[in-house]
Amino acid sequence: METVSENRCFGGTQGVYRHSSDACGCDMTFGLFLPPEAAHGEVPVLWYLSGLTCTHENAMTKAAAQGWAAEAGIALVFPDTSPRGEGVANDDAYDLGQGAGFYVNATQDPWAPHFRMWDYIAEELPALLAKEFPIDADRQAITGHSMGGHGALTLAMNLPGRFRSVSAFAPIANPTASDWGRKQLSAYLGDDETQWAKHDSTLLMREKGFDGPVLIDQGASDQFLDLLKPEALSHAMAERRQDGTFRMQKGYDHSYFFVSTFMEEHIAFHAESLYGNI
Amino acid sequence: METVSENRCFGGTQGVYRHSSDACGCDMTFGLFLPPEAAHGEVPVLWYLSGLTCTHENAMTKAAAQGWAAEAGIALVFPDTSPRGEGVANDDAYDLGQGAGFYVNATQDPWAPHFRMWDYIAEELPALLAKEFPIDADRQAITGHSMGGHGALTLAMNLPGRFRSVSAFAPIANPTASDWGRKQLSAYLGDDETQWAKHDSTLLMREKGFDGPVLIDQGASDQFLDLLKPEALSHAMAERRQDGTFRMQKGYDHSYFFVSTFMEEHIAFHAESLYGNI
Repeated sequence: METVSENRCFGGTQGVYRHSSDACGCDMTFGLFLPPEAAHGEVPVLWYLSGLTCTHENAMTKAAAQGWAAEAGIALVFPDTSPRGEGVANDDAYDLGQGAGFYVNATQDPWAPHFRMWDYIAEELPALLAKEFPIDADRQAITGHSMGGHGALTLAMNLPGRFRSVSAFAPIANPTASDWGRKQLSAYLGDDETQWAKHDSTLLMREKGFDGPVLIDQGASDQFLDLLKPEALSHAMAERRQDGTFRMQKGYDHSYFFVSTFMEEHIAFHAESLYGNI
Repeated sequence: METVSENRCFGGTQGVYRHSSDACGCDMTFGLFLPPEAAHGEVPVLWYLSGLTCTHENAMTKAAAQGWAAEAGIALVFPDTSPRGEGVANDDAYDLGQGAGFYVNATQDPWAPHFRMWDYIAEELPALLAKEFPIDADRQAITGHSMGGHGALTLAMNLPGRFRSVSAFAPIANPTASDWGRKQLSAYLGDDETQWAKHDSTLLMREKGFDGPVLIDQGASDQFLDLLKPEALSHAMAERRQDGTFRMQKGYDHSYFFVSTFMEEHIAFHAESLYGNI
């Protein structure tokens, strides 16, 4: 693992690291914020999964998360959204290929050799973090924005016991019923829709829910509401009697101005689960 | 004036606007954050001047200022750092020409026709803000980063009564004695160094100081310490008995990770002067 940069930030360290990924078969870069407490021992970690077109860097510089994480004593990890580099398949569209990994293990050509973001986020990167940094693997939570909200919710529901809490900002909530989803799931997983079900938050919520608290924020003026389909997830949460909160935020759109506005409350929400039950 | 974008943000609005500038002889773009209180009447304003290579956008997306400004009921204005566009002179270097206006009125060719950032920030943009937005021109304060810290300090000291308080993050503190300064001041203002003096915070501090409180934050691990020369300004502040605080922040560098870390305290500092004496 190679250190790309480390900057002092809110008394802690915002680092960027690069490593050779077995899961993705290429070099992968991620951001990691360690709060001041990490100098004295292990700290819990909140995963932040980013949306279409993003790298590890967008949320790291624009989500205004580090100050709240420093105050709460929580590490933040900002993974990339896909494999990258020469030899990695790509597509001219912004919503397929590099920058659009969709948090699945691709089974179809030309994506199958590298696009294994599920294994990368669920297995490889957590193991690397636990090995290299003072991260307490028993205290993890997860959040994300848009495609990353989809990733956070599907990982949380598919890996019971892994995450104590899950939240999302404007998640792609019902991808099997949306053009943000059907296109990518068919490209990466093929046309057998039974293979898609474990990558749809609404279907997972209907089937099993999450064993912990859930917080969803959605901007009411989001320009992508038709693609995100928040009403499907909201319905499924209520129908399942899921421990959770779904908030429709008047006037907010899909941007990081929306994400940063509610970041304080998301981190406080996760801090309660991460520190409430040590 | 044209609206480029408006995003809901911390209950207020982060806007971007474009207008034809008489001072600069080209279109200029600026960001303006209006807090929730602006819906009900005039609010005070904090100017944020940016550094070399920046546009109106950098601080607007990376300084994490809007949340604190919303809480304090203060508008934030993020001007560009130079004239731009076809027909505007430029230089291959990152630290001269477009993105490097240095907050002066150029008198030398090829810069004189457009590089009039002093007049733009001191006269034209304040008049536009007062006309178009619910901004209370009697309650203004100013801050900035690096070259923008230089701009904030020199404007504040040269325009007594305009700003109630001034702060800076890692300002170019003594440009007449630095390669960040001598190069630009000679290019824009010519070789007569008497013309440079009003654009050097340390010289201004020695000569007259500021009639209000001053707050300076400087990272002790800033990679540009030799160019910024904080010790000169610190000495001048103490010698003048300037009402103010100079803080050397251990471990911090020149990045927005440094700026965002201390933004809360800078906005609280300005809020005290802007709201303490209505």
